[in-house]
Amino acid sequence: MLKVGIIGAGRIGKVHTESITKYVPNAIVKAIADPFIKDETKEWAKSMGIQNIYKDYKEILNDPEIQAVLVCSSTDTHSQISIEAAEVGKHIFCEKPIDHDLDRIRKVLDTVEKSGVKFQVGFNRRFDHNFKAVKEAVESGKIGEPHIIKITSRDPEAPPIDYVKVSGGIFLDMTIHDFDMVRYLSGSEVEEVYAVGNVLVNPEIGKAGDVDTAIVTLKFANGALGVIDNSRRAAYGYDQRAEVFGSKGAVAVTNDTNSTAVISTEEGVTHEKPLYFFLERYMQSFADEIKQFVDAIVNDTEVPVTGIDGLKPILIGLAAKKSLEEGRPIKISEIE
Amino acid sequence: MLKVGIIGAGRIGKVHTESITKYVPNAIVKAIADPFIKDETKEWAKSMGIQNIYKDYKEILNDPEIQAVLVCSSTDTHSQISIEAAEVGKHIFCEKPIDHDLDRIRKVLDTVEKSGVKFQVGFNRRFDHNFKAVKEAVESGKIGEPHIIKITSRDPEAPPIDYVKVSGGIFLDMTIHDFDMVRYLSGSEVEEVYAVGNVLVNPEIGKAGDVDTAIVTLKFANGALGVIDNSRRAAYGYDQRAEVFGSKGAVAVTNDTNSTAVISTEEGVTHEKPLYFFLERYMQSFADEIKQFVDAIVNDTEVPVTGIDGLKPILIGLAAKKSLEEGRPIKISEIE
Amino acid sequence: MLKVGIIGAGRIGKVHTESITKYVPNAIVKAIADPFIKDETKEWAKSMGIQNIYKDYKEILNDPEIQAVLVCSSTDTHSQISIEAAEVGKHIFCEKPIDHDLDRIRKVLDTVEKSGVKFQVGFNRRFDHNFKAVKEAVESGKIGEPHIIKITSRDPEAPPIDYVKVSGGIFLDMTIHDFDMVRYLSGSEVEEVYAVGNVLVNPEIGKAGDVDTAIVTLKFANGALGVIDNSRRAAYGYDQRAEVFGSKGAVAVTNDTNSTAVISTEEGVTHEKPLYFFLERYMQSFADEIKQFVDAIVNDTEVPVTGIDGLKPILIGLAAKKSLEEGRPIKISEIE
Amino acid sequence: MLKVGIIGAGRIGKVHTESITKYVPNAIVKAIADPFIKDETKEWAKSMGIQNIYKDYKEILNDPEIQAVLVCSSTDTHSQISIEAAEVGKHIFCEKPIDHDLDRIRKVLDTVEKSGVKFQVGFNRRFDHNFKAVKEAVESGKIGEPHIIKITSRDPEAPPIDYVKVSGGIFLDMTIHDFDMVRYLSGSEVEEVYAVGNVLVNPEIGKAGDVDTAIVTLKFANGALGVIDNSRRAAYGYDQRAEVFGSKGAVAVTNDTNSTAVISTEEGVTHEKPLYFFLERYMQSFADEIKQFVDAIVNDTEVPVTGIDGLKPILIGLAAKKSLEEGRPIKISEIE
Repeated sequence: MLKVGIIGAGRIGKVHTESITKYVPNAIVKAIADPFIKDETKEWAKSMGIQNIYKDYKEILNDPEIQAVLVCSSTDTHSQISIEAAEVGKHIFCEKPIDHDLDRIRKVLDTVEKSGVKFQVGFNRRFDHNFKAVKEAVESGKIGEPHIIKITSRDPEAPPIDYVKVSGGIFLDMTIHDFDMVRYLSGSEVEEVYAVGNVLVNPEIGKAGDVDTAIVTLKFANGALGVIDNSRRAAYGYDQRAEVFGSKGAVAVTNDTNSTAVISTEEGVTHEKPLYFFLERYMQSFADEIKQFVDAIVNDTEVPVTGIDGLKPILIGLAAKKSLEEGRPIKISEIE
Repeated sequence: MLKVGIIGAGRIGKVHTESITKYVPNAIVKAIADPFIKDETKEWAKSMGIQNIYKDYKEILNDPEIQAVLVCSSTDTHSQISIEAAEVGKHIFCEKPIDHDLDRIRKVLDTVEKSGVKFQVGFNRRFDHNFKAVKEAVESGKIGEPHIIKITSRDPEAPPIDYVKVSGGIFLDMTIHDFDMVRYLSGSEVEEVYAVGNVLVNPEIGKAGDVDTAIVTLKFANGALGVIDNSRRAAYGYDQRAEVFGSKGAVAVTNDTNSTAVISTEEGVTHEKPLYFFLERYMQSFADEIKQFVDAIVNDTEVPVTGIDGLKPILIGLAAKKSLEEGRPIKISEIE
Repeated sequence: MLKVGIIGAGRIGKVHTESITKYVPNAIVKAIADPFIKDETKEWAKSMGIQNIYKDYKEILNDPEIQAVLVCSSTDTHSQISIEAAEVGKHIFCEKPIDHDLDRIRKVLDTVEKSGVKFQVGFNRRFDHNFKAVKEAVESGKIGEPHIIKITSRDPEAPPIDYVKVSGGIFLDMTIHDFDMVRYLSGSEVEEVYAVGNVLVNPEIGKAGDVDTAIVTLKFANGALGVIDNSRRAAYGYDQRAEVFGSKGAVAVTNDTNSTAVISTEEGVTHEKPLYFFLERYMQSFADEIKQFVDAIVNDTEVPVTGIDGLKPILIGLAAKKSLEEGRPIKISEIE
Repeated sequence: MLKVGIIGAGRIGKVHTESITKYVPNAIVKAIADPFIKDETKEWAKSMGIQNIYKDYKEILNDPEIQAVLVCSSTDTHSQISIEAAEVGKHIFCEKPIDHDLDRIRKVLDTVEKSGVKFQVGFNRRFDHNFKAVKEAVESGKIGEPHIIKITSRDPEAPPIDYVKVSGGIFLDMTIHDFDMVRYLSGSEVEEVYAVGNVLVNPEIGKAGDVDTAIVTLKFANGALGVIDNSRRAAYGYDQRAEVFGSKGAVAVTNDTNSTAVISTEEGVTHEKPLYFFLERYMQSFADEIKQFVDAIVNDTEVPVTGIDGLKPILIGLAAKKSLEEGRPIKISEIE
């Protein structure tokens, strides 16, 4: 039974805690730490059977029984906590992004490598049933060599402006998942990025120096081309689609819905809207990424999403940002 | 160039005339006859290039240049005109139903046989792209031996009560097409029929001695089972679906729409409604049945829908009617 | 925290145990009983945190701390155990069917009524997201008054012949769920039943005195008509569809799949097959029915599926059986 | 009755001739001209009832009875013939592209303007039922202000290399239709273009100096963003999809198929592939564009696709070509 500590008791920390408790039979959450932990969170933690509730994550790092930590704290603390955890030999599941700063990311990866701990990054969508089905179709050879990779990724509503301001911009905050996904689906590395963007959803986002609507074109090392389209607000809900087109065919996935119900009336033939947002849409993937993290520790195998997988989308995101600023395609090698 | 006469200048007579003019290169409409022909119909006939417009269909029968007639007159005249046409050696395309009276149908079939003319019945749905795709899947063996045949057939609105009164009842007027379709799709004959029905759409239909909602269960000679559900009014439009389920799988067809457009908004994800009614939905099949009728004459081959194919659905319809009246399953052999 | 005992450690007993452990926060499984319990089941029970593992269910009935039992034993013991449990004041969740014998069912209902315990029957499909969506559409009035209720229910493979022999026949074993569903969706009672059936899947089923393919036509008290089609074997998998057609429109649900992936190649455009069988397809509904059972006890409210809901489908099933045997429609009043 | 001359008796000239003969009641094809006309084409022309068959198109221009011409000759002759036709006062339907040379296009537009004749360009897809449904949804305001316009346009097979060599390149030959479509759907002008492309289908295409796979990103005057993805070969057939995403929702269209048949077997649930290629897919649109051209002449109203509509996609195509060559975004103003 692997003993785990959760660092950060916000939304995603709770999601992972519940996943471990319900779905990961060979792991248990021994402790949770959050400097701003609320009384209701403490109640919830007790109901989950968590023995230790701390303000300071160092108490988790100091507990010799705890073998692995999940870094679910605010983004700006991910790299520092990961480094400290690696130094005391804890296996690490780190929420995305590791950091927005390339040097700090590299320091994390170096420390992890030296310490020999497992280090997995929280790109949960790789574990989603739909995206996995695309990956499997690509790997099966059914669609041949990939030629075009397309992702549509639109949120049901824009985040608060205060969040936008510290988010690192749409490409590092939102498209980062799509950058990971195109690497995963194409089986190749992005070499060049061109981004266009505009402020069409909320002018405040523009005032905060960001865009809310964007299209990013990609060139891959294997010759394939890619395109991602993003919006911070789709009126009909969370739109999460992907398509890989290849020499022998194509595979595409569309949105999940709450039911298959179709209502036909004088007005039309109406299907359900997509599941509302990432907690509804990706719950299964959150559980599965943790299961595989625990399995990688228990069986001493490779984690499914590595530190390099955490670094690469940041590089692509920084290239997209630079492309938008300078109005020209940017090679990843310019960023590295 | 086959010269054709159209008997009856109502809706379906016009449909066939336009089909021949536009889509049947080896046939021409030389004459049209209708006792109640209107001036605007005469105008239309001229615009179609029809040379002769008569009140009396006998003028068509007397024209030695005309080799084939399309009997598109009122139902109660189909059998008489067909007999006369056969007797003067004209090939006959007869709109469904041949007649509601079994003896008169048999007399038509006898006369046709003796005269050696081609005789095709207007079960146009056999020529529809969707139903043909079902038939082809069944015949290809892809779904194995048929076990269950299902038809959903619902009109977008109930006919006028005056029409209902002379229609012969829902089973002979509306379900008759479905009875033909189950024979066509199953490749087997119906042996027993059980019908339930109710008046749920319009009480006037009940007063006229008919039902407007019905479910008919069928047993086939090959052991398969079948079910047809009918309504005289589907609020969302003309609902025309079929499914054949067999030992190796199933094939199903659903409704055609005007476009593939899907509109996603806060209210839902809306597809188009079915094409409005039979003229919109089955136009292609009306043209194709006539093409094949003309080809059968020109090449002296078997017509695709024979006199027996015209008779059998009437037998099933009469059995359904009797079943509804007596509240018990009826064998076709009881009707014959 | 409601303490629960599980009677019967077979497949469905395990499903309910896992549901309570994972998804029902206000209940705990204190004991499990099974006369033929295996060592591996004991291991599993311990891993679930169950304190007491018995051979004799009476030990559960004698435990004053246990407030509710789930009767998951073999069908022929449901009624006896339910009666005993009611007599000692335990709330009861009874798997379907309560019994195949009407007198024994009535005795269960009487005993439950006298004792005042909650009694819920395991018609889990009412809790399924798809069927609930149909029910909600009907209740919302969006489709108007129900006119036609249709269920397609086909298993991915026929059960072993030994099971078929003791199953009570297809109508009491398989269609029973559909009989419950048409009551639930129509909001009305079945008054008359007509069944046709045949042996098309496996001749051994015929030798065992049963059919494997069936169509059941229904008349409802509110005037609506219904039809259920069943097969013991659909080559493409578990086929679970429903449609309610009404005065203002229709609502239909189709099968769930593992993903939304569509693969397009030279061969065609291929979607995924339905989820394999009831454990895959209905897992969410199994959890939800138990949640609501526990809530009904804790809040002292009406259970969502009552003893009468357990009785009625048996009546319809017996009518269907008699209809098939006698080749005529059977009124439910003939069975009662 | 408008008398029309067809200049060019190749594939598209025949399509238009048949459309006029069958579907345009107020027009007649009086003459057809083609310098390389074959005997079988002459036969076909006679069967269409065409009186005059010429080698030299000037005979059509000299016929005072002919009021309108359809320029269906080889691309390099479109502008010259259009100019001559305008000068003798014939109304002109000109196949796309008017020319690849901007000066020659401008000369055509000038001449047309001076002469006062109608001039329509053959962007038939605007008349397609699917794309019209998208346009109508956009214009209805249902999806709000357009934010993202997406086109997928993939051919079922690459053209012969000899054709590729004279085609003007993928952007002027194939994407040109998509450039027209994004203008039509967005209701706005393209201001900037960025194109990436690669040779992934056939290396011979690369040797001919062209690409066979491309993604083109667009900025519109109204702030919207657009993306087109192209391939010269989709293994599953002609892939023609569009989506407009806006402030209140999205509208999308997918491919037409020969039937709605779905075949479910052990292997999967298979739908039909798209209609094979443009003749199958767009036949209805070819007829409708000519109908509206004739109506514009007869009623003296604006043609639905103007000379400017013919010019603009060429500008975008030239910008895309330059973008691919120079590896940077190109403003349309750089081309003009």
